[in-house]
Amino acid sequence: MLPILEYQEQFLHYLAQQNFDKEPRNLYEPVDYILQLGGKRLRPVLTLMTADVFDVDYKLALPAAMAVEVFHNFSLVHDDIMDDAPLRRGNTTVHEKWNVNTGILSGDAMLILAYQYFENYQPKTFRKLAKLFSKTALEVCEGQQYDVDFETRTDVTIPEYLKMIEYKTAVLVAAAMKMGAIIAQTSKENSRLIYDFGLNLGLAFQLQDDYLDAFGDPKTFGKQVGGDIIENKKTYLYLKALEFSKPKEQEQLAQLFSLQLEDSSEKIETVKEIFNRTGAAQATQKAIEDYTLKAFETLEKIDVSQDKKELLKAFGDNLMNRKV
Amino acid sequence: MLPILEYQEQFLHYLAQQNFDKEPRNLYEPVDYILQLGGKRLRPVLTLMTADVFDVDYKLALPAAMAVEVFHNFSLVHDDIMDDAPLRRGNTTVHEKWNVNTGILSGDAMLILAYQYFENYQPKTFRKLAKLFSKTALEVCEGQQYDVDFETRTDVTIPEYLKMIEYKTAVLVAAAMKMGAIIAQTSKENSRLIYDFGLNLGLAFQLQDDYLDAFGDPKTFGKQVGGDIIENKKTYLYLKALEFSKPKEQEQLAQLFSLQLEDSSEKIETVKEIFNRTGAAQATQKAIEDYTLKAFETLEKIDVSQDKKELLKAFGDNLMNRKV
Repeated sequence: MLPILEYQEQFLHYLAQQNFDKEPRNLYEPVDYILQLGGKRLRPVLTLMTADVFDVDYKLALPAAMAVEVFHNFSLVHDDIMDDAPLRRGNTTVHEKWNVNTGILSGDAMLILAYQYFENYQPKTFRKLAKLFSKTALEVCEGQQYDVDFETRTDVTIPEYLKMIEYKTAVLVAAAMKMGAIIAQTSKENSRLIYDFGLNLGLAFQLQDDYLDAFGDPKTFGKQVGGDIIENKKTYLYLKALEFSKPKEQEQLAQLFSLQLEDSSEKIETVKEIFNRTGAAQATQKAIEDYTLKAFETLEKIDVSQDKKELLKAFGDNLMNRKV
Repeated sequence: MLPILEYQEQFLHYLAQQNFDKEPRNLYEPVDYILQLGGKRLRPVLTLMTADVFDVDYKLALPAAMAVEVFHNFSLVHDDIMDDAPLRRGNTTVHEKWNVNTGILSGDAMLILAYQYFENYQPKTFRKLAKLFSKTALEVCEGQQYDVDFETRTDVTIPEYLKMIEYKTAVLVAAAMKMGAIIAQTSKENSRLIYDFGLNLGLAFQLQDDYLDAFGDPKTFGKQVGGDIIENKKTYLYLKALEFSKPKEQEQLAQLFSLQLEDSSEKIETVKEIFNRTGAAQATQKAIEDYTLKAFETLEKIDVSQDKKELLKAFGDNLMNRKV
């Protein structure tokens, strides 16, 4: 079996053993619901894989992996309320299936439940994990706030955008890996390097998401292609297109990104054409490649056997060649 | 100086040193705002007092006291969204001053910030504090969910109501005190007893709140007298009145508690008259007394000098004779 599939299977097995069949039902049913909706389980897999890479029985990392996944789902539940999103992974969102109050309160409970998983570790490890987790969780909130702020701003710069996706997405990928390193009690330097690897991989991952949202194959992408364009999201593609455009094109693009249309198919085609013509599409692919290479360079510096490095590299390659 | 005032002053001094002047402003400004709104600071004072009672420099308990206060304010911010409340301590609520999304996200940040205060302690103490905190925080969420559930139920029993206020209010008072005991590294038995003391005091406190909401003196109470009656809240007073009534009176009361009136002054008078006539008012006062006495009995069992016990008893007496 491929190691990645084994981690995934073990994680799902551990998840299935969790008991959310508790009272009050209106609090715990949504927790169970969102955690069963599936998803790639990337973050917990990375926690397990990293523990394995640093030579400890990866099953010891299951509670930390669970904490990361529960936190990730907490953030989805609250973000979906803020975005007024009807669907998540093709299913009704928690606040739509129940109501906004249930979404808020069940989300709160999930944030606390995430911390409780660290109680499976001894005091020193517990403190390290919880400290990293708190720092990361706060950064994710900050990233979400920047994302909200950017919606009503027209002067967002590329460094600002990169900081936003770093906080909103990449730090959790990085922390998920560092948790595996903490549990394996590897050196501080290795922990720092694996965090750095995860951070760059996370950035590449989010930029890839931006790219696929516009240029993914509708047959394999899963989500609606052009979703970000419909919602006028100022992604890396958009900001790069602005940067590479002449004033007149900039105006046209800004104008297109102020429209809320019934049928966006024409707008999507026009915008994609601009993304291509200005070189924004190419620049985004270049940025994805750069961050991936940066991740792989960091990987080389980690003090661990070559076959373990191959495992992480294969995962990175896999992630970057995804169509979903 | 009265010790209570000294704790309060030290806490406010510590609070003033906290720096929430961070980016993004839309995330941290509401945190600062709600924490500056005042309030009695009962819970953090109890943490400091308990550390003092168990013979450790109470200033060591300041970060834990802060965690408790930040958590309490997190719960207020999210509860105010759920209750659609316009005012908190006479000021605009966070979701009204900003918006619901800001209320959700700043609240989330506060829950995480609360955990971060425990990072001021060494691993063993950190783990004990964070574990107690997570258990308590989850119970507070459960209590809030029961409270929400009860709004649409007509068959709430008194034991159910007591469990709800235990979770929603009393456990945080109890945990605030136990944190002081943990920091002072007193015996397990003392920790257990002080938790029990706080729990019963917290229950008495909440029942007192119910009582004052109906029978408090408008000149000193601060809040609108009769607020619970206007909102048809099924408090202890209401449930006891139902219990003590004949079927016909029960119907009248249930009918009164289904009304949403422009001017509730007549309804308030009628309901208060029923609370008095049925003996519900007296039964509530008896319950407040019983829980207070139970708290004081527990106090006697704690292994600590008599003058320390007097300090806690004075605090309890003070709380129970309050008009606010």
